[in-house]
Amino acid sequence: MKAVKYAGPYRVAVEDVPEPPIEAPGDAIVRITTTNICGSDLHMYEGRTGVEEGKILGHENMGIVEDTGPAVTRIMPGDRVSVPFNIACGTCRNCVAGWTSFCLRTNPTEGVDGAAYGYDQMGPYDGGQAEYLRVPFADFNLLALPSGAEWERDFAMLSDIFPTGYHGAELAGVGPGDTVAVFGAGPVGLLAAHSSYLRGAARVFVADYQPDRLMLAERFDATPVNIADGNPAEQIRDATGGLGADRGIEAVGYQAHDPAGQEHPEMVLDGLVSAVRTTGGIGVVGVYVPQDAKAATDGAKEGRIGFDFGTLFQKGQRVGTGQCPVKRYNAALRDLIIAGQATPSLLVSHELPLAEAPDAYDKFDKRADGYTKVLLHP
Amino acid sequence: MKAVKYAGPYRVAVEDVPEPPIEAPGDAIVRITTTNICGSDLHMYEGRTGVEEGKILGHENMGIVEDTGPAVTRIMPGDRVSVPFNIACGTCRNCVAGWTSFCLRTNPTEGVDGAAYGYDQMGPYDGGQAEYLRVPFADFNLLALPSGAEWERDFAMLSDIFPTGYHGAELAGVGPGDTVAVFGAGPVGLLAAHSSYLRGAARVFVADYQPDRLMLAERFDATPVNIADGNPAEQIRDATGGLGADRGIEAVGYQAHDPAGQEHPEMVLDGLVSAVRTTGGIGVVGVYVPQDAKAATDGAKEGRIGFDFGTLFQKGQRVGTGQCPVKRYNAALRDLIIAGQATPSLLVSHELPLAEAPDAYDKFDKRADGYTKVLLHP
Amino acid sequence: MKAVKYAGPYRVAVEDVPEPPIEAPGDAIVRITTTNICGSDLHMYEGRTGVEEGKILGHENMGIVEDTGPAVTRIMPGDRVSVPFNIACGTCRNCVAGWTSFCLRTNPTEGVDGAAYGYDQMGPYDGGQAEYLRVPFADFNLLALPSGAEWERDFAMLSDIFPTGYHGAELAGVGPGDTVAVFGAGPVGLLAAHSSYLRGAARVFVADYQPDRLMLAERFDATPVNIADGNPAEQIRDATGGLGADRGIEAVGYQAHDPAGQEHPEMVLDGLVSAVRTTGGIGVVGVYVPQDAKAATDGAKEGRIGFDFGTLFQKGQRVGTGQCPVKRYNAALRDLIIAGQATPSLLVSHELPLAEAPDAYDKFDKRADGYTKVLLHP
Amino acid sequence: MKAVKYAGPYRVAVEDVPEPPIEAPGDAIVRITTTNICGSDLHMYEGRTGVEEGKILGHENMGIVEDTGPAVTRIMPGDRVSVPFNIACGTCRNCVAGWTSFCLRTNPTEGVDGAAYGYDQMGPYDGGQAEYLRVPFADFNLLALPSGAEWERDFAMLSDIFPTGYHGAELAGVGPGDTVAVFGAGPVGLLAAHSSYLRGAARVFVADYQPDRLMLAERFDATPVNIADGNPAEQIRDATGGLGADRGIEAVGYQAHDPAGQEHPEMVLDGLVSAVRTTGGIGVVGVYVPQDAKAATDGAKEGRIGFDFGTLFQKGQRVGTGQCPVKRYNAALRDLIIAGQATPSLLVSHELPLAEAPDAYDKFDKRADGYTKVLLHP
Repeated sequence: MKAVKYAGPYRVAVEDVPEPPIEAPGDAIVRITTTNICGSDLHMYEGRTGVEEGKILGHENMGIVEDTGPAVTRIMPGDRVSVPFNIACGTCRNCVAGWTSFCLRTNPTEGVDGAAYGYDQMGPYDGGQAEYLRVPFADFNLLALPSGAEWERDFAMLSDIFPTGYHGAELAGVGPGDTVAVFGAGPVGLLAAHSSYLRGAARVFVADYQPDRLMLAERFDATPVNIADGNPAEQIRDATGGLGADRGIEAVGYQAHDPAGQEHPEMVLDGLVSAVRTTGGIGVVGVYVPQDAKAATDGAKEGRIGFDFGTLFQKGQRVGTGQCPVKRYNAALRDLIIAGQATPSLLVSHELPLAEAPDAYDKFDKRADGYTKVLLHP
Repeated sequence: MKAVKYAGPYRVAVEDVPEPPIEAPGDAIVRITTTNICGSDLHMYEGRTGVEEGKILGHENMGIVEDTGPAVTRIMPGDRVSVPFNIACGTCRNCVAGWTSFCLRTNPTEGVDGAAYGYDQMGPYDGGQAEYLRVPFADFNLLALPSGAEWERDFAMLSDIFPTGYHGAELAGVGPGDTVAVFGAGPVGLLAAHSSYLRGAARVFVADYQPDRLMLAERFDATPVNIADGNPAEQIRDATGGLGADRGIEAVGYQAHDPAGQEHPEMVLDGLVSAVRTTGGIGVVGVYVPQDAKAATDGAKEGRIGFDFGTLFQKGQRVGTGQCPVKRYNAALRDLIIAGQATPSLLVSHELPLAEAPDAYDKFDKRADGYTKVLLHP
Repeated sequence: MKAVKYAGPYRVAVEDVPEPPIEAPGDAIVRITTTNICGSDLHMYEGRTGVEEGKILGHENMGIVEDTGPAVTRIMPGDRVSVPFNIACGTCRNCVAGWTSFCLRTNPTEGVDGAAYGYDQMGPYDGGQAEYLRVPFADFNLLALPSGAEWERDFAMLSDIFPTGYHGAELAGVGPGDTVAVFGAGPVGLLAAHSSYLRGAARVFVADYQPDRLMLAERFDATPVNIADGNPAEQIRDATGGLGADRGIEAVGYQAHDPAGQEHPEMVLDGLVSAVRTTGGIGVVGVYVPQDAKAATDGAKEGRIGFDFGTLFQKGQRVGTGQCPVKRYNAALRDLIIAGQATPSLLVSHELPLAEAPDAYDKFDKRADGYTKVLLHP
Repeated sequence: MKAVKYAGPYRVAVEDVPEPPIEAPGDAIVRITTTNICGSDLHMYEGRTGVEEGKILGHENMGIVEDTGPAVTRIMPGDRVSVPFNIACGTCRNCVAGWTSFCLRTNPTEGVDGAAYGYDQMGPYDGGQAEYLRVPFADFNLLALPSGAEWERDFAMLSDIFPTGYHGAELAGVGPGDTVAVFGAGPVGLLAAHSSYLRGAARVFVADYQPDRLMLAERFDATPVNIADGNPAEQIRDATGGLGADRGIEAVGYQAHDPAGQEHPEMVLDGLVSAVRTTGGIGVVGVYVPQDAKAATDGAKEGRIGFDFGTLFQKGQRVGTGQCPVKRYNAALRDLIIAGQATPSLLVSHELPLAEAPDAYDKFDKRADGYTKVLLHP
């Protein structure tokens, strides 16, 4: 079959590889119909991680079940399914508590809980930018979808970024009537805004400096806040009678940079502490890591982010963090898509055949030609 | 009447001052029977804040209602009451939501929500280390106690440190069966341990390096972790089969220092991130401030604490912070004292007349003669 | 001033009465701009309660603050306000816990917690179908609205039926992605449906047998279920693949009757137990009472409702009940109205001068001429 | 192997049967070390259900894993385990939500969600009053215990009655400082009291009329309320200053009878509605069923319980019901046993060899000789 492999910094290649077999009684093989390129794939693409060359990439996958092992009894061949990016055992303490993003059993990497497809440090699992994908613990992990082809673009958002945006809103504690400040108008930030409205938010602000992304924010009914126009926290406080937002969502991460391209690891957290009112909640789904030799500050190289914790404490704020447990949210989000309440596909910019992956990675990495979100069809 | 006034760094004086009058229809005047010296009073005593000379100190107060204004209908003269350290209006958005520690109306200080008695930056309110205290919005703020003198030492803990310790457990999300790591064996840390057990914790560790405090931790059934014996996070991980604690409580603050006396503002947060397992919660009731010109690092001088946020994110932890809304917890804790389930007074070391306040401040500040918790009786 | 008084079964009269004075330091006097007739006013109108003749009716009130007592510091004369139907002290245990509908201090009626304006058994308070209304504990009870006249019809729903519908959704536990079954398409049922969508429901069914109300349900995007077409629980189970709804809301009460007019006190609870799936939640805001000599069954005369509790237990359902604590929800709902997310006024059918109250009661009681919801303007 | 079979009303027999084989890849075979007789086994024993003759009884089981199927990877042969009475698939919607007591896939009985070992209507599964037991979906269902023999009697309570008592406290919403009224001092009621204290209750009342059970309640630090001394709700209200308890737990069921032996299906619910204060919660773990031809009233024969729902509504109470999802609680309760905080075995009255099961059933059914809780050791 054809698959997209990492081939060194700024290079991916579409190559022939063997089809994955059933390895364990709980496995399923999924024929991929849609697999997305994620912004976090670019971390590997840019050579900023230690991922080995030859790794098949892709953790945002959906398709049709082709085959199942003898212990699989809930999911059947022929089922249309969404594949959460987390690979979870379903029976460890964290999985049972709904924290599939921190499964204690599926990732052999020392010191890391939680596994994923086609990703650095997340276990020895191939990705789904390919014709077929092996899914462990299929009865637990796979989400059944209505058969047919309807909502394919919306359902393609269910494996990662829609639940991840929603998780930001959950960690922040967004509820009915709230005012929400989202920092970052990338796909996750936009779907954090969309999710905030689904949870009953009254007003959502989205801060960024890229005009095309701010226009997308408006399509999701959010109020754009252009960082180029001044301190975004001040803009949000001014728009809320000085109080600040009830909740804040971090959808950027430690590689945050100013419009001039300079990275400031603490910039977004500082902005949220300032933009959110006393007693408010902050959900962090933008990525922070314990080590990055190329980080912008000595602290950030070892995970230390010197943000304004003193003010955070004085304001009595709370902060939730970490990778999204997709399974906790994806069934509800699927039902909202079917009911017509949610339309995450508004942000999809390109649909391409798998063979065009190298060009798509290149353009997406350069944010050329309006590349916001790319779907690949094997 | 007699009152304890701040008189400059390392000096307090007991002086004659006028008795406080009823100023507003909702006021009550309380005759103080017990008023404690709090560890946070030492920040002012040591000259580390901007508190003005002449301020009457004392925010841990209880007594008998002497008089009430015409709008007070629930509390009656003669009632025995505990006075929460927070001064709350009872009708602003934060008060109504149960966040009396962030009242939007009682503190005129720019940029600070929440008021308190006898404290720097917390509004123009006299403290209760005196014979009488004026209590605004008395019907809302005062907690009724059984008449008589029983449980006086336990009830004296209800105005601040018992609820504050409990708040740490609440912010951390401590629940039945949990393993809890408390950093700091001062009064708040000890009562955070006590509170954790009241909420059903299975095991509580308390880390410190002072042997007398670690012995007190054992009296509260906690397992002492002596920092002098090595990295406390490692000790706790070793004692939990490598997993780490389910929950962590910060009861030290940014002035944390090593056994040699050197301050390390990020030390306790780092320890908790390391000691607590993936998906765990951390409650921060140790104090962090936006500015302190005498802080140990350039960052900490402006509230920036460069702790290991990268690992916190990778572990999917959550952090709650801030001053305790005493009223949210004090009725339940009172009832647990009466029922014999809670005995916070275990940590009281001294009971003295008000006149001995200067000596008590001096010894408590030096931690001399086993001064752990001092109660003053006017 | 003019006021609407109860004058015996099926009779109200508009009469001259003295304007209400400030009686206590915490009182405010509100000049009424809009006051609604509530379905529950008809219980008194029909002589089914023990309310005394001469009582001024009306508990759904809004207007402009005219005067305040000396203890009122948050609300100012000139403020536009919504008046929650509950009269709450703000300082008793239930009020502090957010249960203003069960205030322990404002209702002297033996055995009843919670007070209201102009209602039988709810304390000695005049109603607001008048030019002026006295509001006790004004700082706690009144909700501030933007000045001017905008959203008057929507804001008029904030004193009772919008929060009451929302409370039904809260008691049922409605959350994102849920399917909800609402029984009763009166004003409360319709706003329970509207509230369910605001909380993220994917699909809402509303069951009734009156075609005009079912058409209104469709205006709120709900799926109408016509009881005249067969068992509504079966219809809902059929529409949900046999599973049943995730949540159910009771918006009818014990006076539920079949299309032929025969009362069946247990009918709606039975329908919900059957329509809701295992582990689901049921919120009951339709009224049940401990005594009603005119009830349809011997049991119901003393509050006993012989519904199918055996099946409820076997399905592991939970049931929340009782009058709505308006203050818990009205600020969020106000903000959703202002943001354009909520439009409860869709169900308003008539706006009339206060003088036409007798005719309006008559027609509303007969459900003549499309009388769904009547607003009176003094 | 030897096994206890139902042999018709008031008869069980210990007979030789084949050992259970591995049937599915996820199965485990457990060698039983302790298996209890449950009060609910007596429903079958007394011929009050439709259970077929020859059924192996026993759903309170623990032991050592003897063998596992090829899909079992978490649990290993040799592991000491507790077997929850619920048989859950681990991957259906209810299981994933933590509602293993309402598994949608393991019970083929029409209209019933949730399966169990050796019980009428709960699926075709043999019970564990035998030498070996087959456990489906073993990785999901089995709870690992420390190896050895320590805490055997306490751990024997983890398969059903300790979690079931705890579930009553959870459904009632018991939290720190609460006053709790438990109706029924059988094993579940006693462990509901014990669980309430573990969750921080200040005071727990237990109402019954059997002196030996009331003495056991005292051993669990509860205040006994003897129904023979008068209306238990009145006694509890009197002991709480007229307010009533904050929370109530139903641990009796519809077969409740007065001291004279007459059944009153609505008696306990009425008592709880009366004993619990406004806004309080009621957890129902005593059993109610949709049909019982031998029930005491015409209503109860078809599941209709005519209790005082009018007062329940007027008091704004909430009610949670249903069989316990053991897996949600058993790990925490295990840890509390190991830590010495929980000692549910206080109520064990007899330990017998499996061969004495017929005599034990007979005496337990007659409540002879202090038979409170019987443990059988194969």
